[in-house]
Amino acid sequence: MLSPLIDGLIAAFQVLPGVGPKSAQRMALDILQRNREGGSKLAEALAASVEKVSWCRDCRTLTEAGQCRLCADADRDDSVLCVVESPADILAIEQAGGFRGRYFVLNGRLSPIDGVGPEDLALDRLAARVRALGVREVILATNPTVEGEATAHYIAGLLENDVADISRIAHGVPIGGELEYVDGGTIMHALQGRRRLG
Amino acid sequence: MLSPLIDGLIAAFQVLPGVGPKSAQRMALDILQRNREGGSKLAEALAASVEKVSWCRDCRTLTEAGQCRLCADADRDDSVLCVVESPADILAIEQAGGFRGRYFVLNGRLSPIDGVGPEDLALDRLAARVRALGVREVILATNPTVEGEATAHYIAGLLENDVADISRIAHGVPIGGELEYVDGGTIMHALQGRRRLG
Repeated sequence: MLSPLIDGLIAAFQVLPGVGPKSAQRMALDILQRNREGGSKLAEALAASVEKVSWCRDCRTLTEAGQCRLCADADRDDSVLCVVESPADILAIEQAGGFRGRYFVLNGRLSPIDGVGPEDLALDRLAARVRALGVREVILATNPTVEGEATAHYIAGLLENDVADISRIAHGVPIGGELEYVDGGTIMHALQGRRRLG
Repeated sequence: MLSPLIDGLIAAFQVLPGVGPKSAQRMALDILQRNREGGSKLAEALAASVEKVSWCRDCRTLTEAGQCRLCADADRDDSVLCVVESPADILAIEQAGGFRGRYFVLNGRLSPIDGVGPEDLALDRLAARVRALGVREVILATNPTVEGEATAHYIAGLLENDVADISRIAHGVPIGGELEYVDGGTIMHALQGRRRLG
């Protein structure tokens, strides 16, 4: 509708998650009308990141440094390792605070339908990492979906001879949530996972 | 939180309209995990557009071609000129269909508070364009905001000796809208702008 370059830019913005034709058009026109400098910086940051960012050799999170900041931190507790599906999960846990152990990122979950098997999650490297660190407890923090649960159980079976404790994060009513508005599956988990008081 | 490059990319995404820290993080990680090719294409499209896209010499919409597609179209009606605030407004009118005249884009609106005066809207070029095309009717399609109304009235005064008809687009209840849910200002405009039936 506008010109080949602008139409191309609007199409290119639609690779971003949650961005449809209308938001893409708004982004393209906003950059071109009001913020070309910001647009240039975004183009440079994108090109540099796509070229240079790779995976941490220890935990497989995204980093351009070979080894990520958390794996390089000598103050973290080697005896606890938390297994997550994606780098965003590490951010969520770190922002919550309180966990001082190590991480391992699967970059996916077991999903036979999508053709994702154990070899795609680098589970051999997870086992090697567990042995190298001398991990005492593995916390499985995959998502509470069918695939996430299956992945957690598969890993639990895989590591049972290498590590003393294998745990799964708790699922239940979120803090600040109201029981009335919580779905049935969550309430079932909350009841099953009940803890004795006192 | 992650690495300097990724943190920089997350910050860079926040120049986009409607993108806060959470969506920016999601965009950056999604591109790096799943769609580096799409990310590269977006970086290239952005860099090329920011460098090459300029304003149409006739209507001042965004284009890299010197003259935009609509101004270059010999089949459009030179006798009617529609004045809009931004290139996105042209898209909206063209997508609605039915208008076959010419356009002029102000790329802004009169706004003394923001320091936007008549000279910033290239109103001299609007007057020159009206004379060059031999325009018979100017349709003022600025937004129904205080600034948009003021801009429309200013332009009407400016062009009254150059053009036979000067009109303002109608404001009223949107098609498909229900009176019950329409705001008071719109209903007032709809009553004032009522048209005799038959």
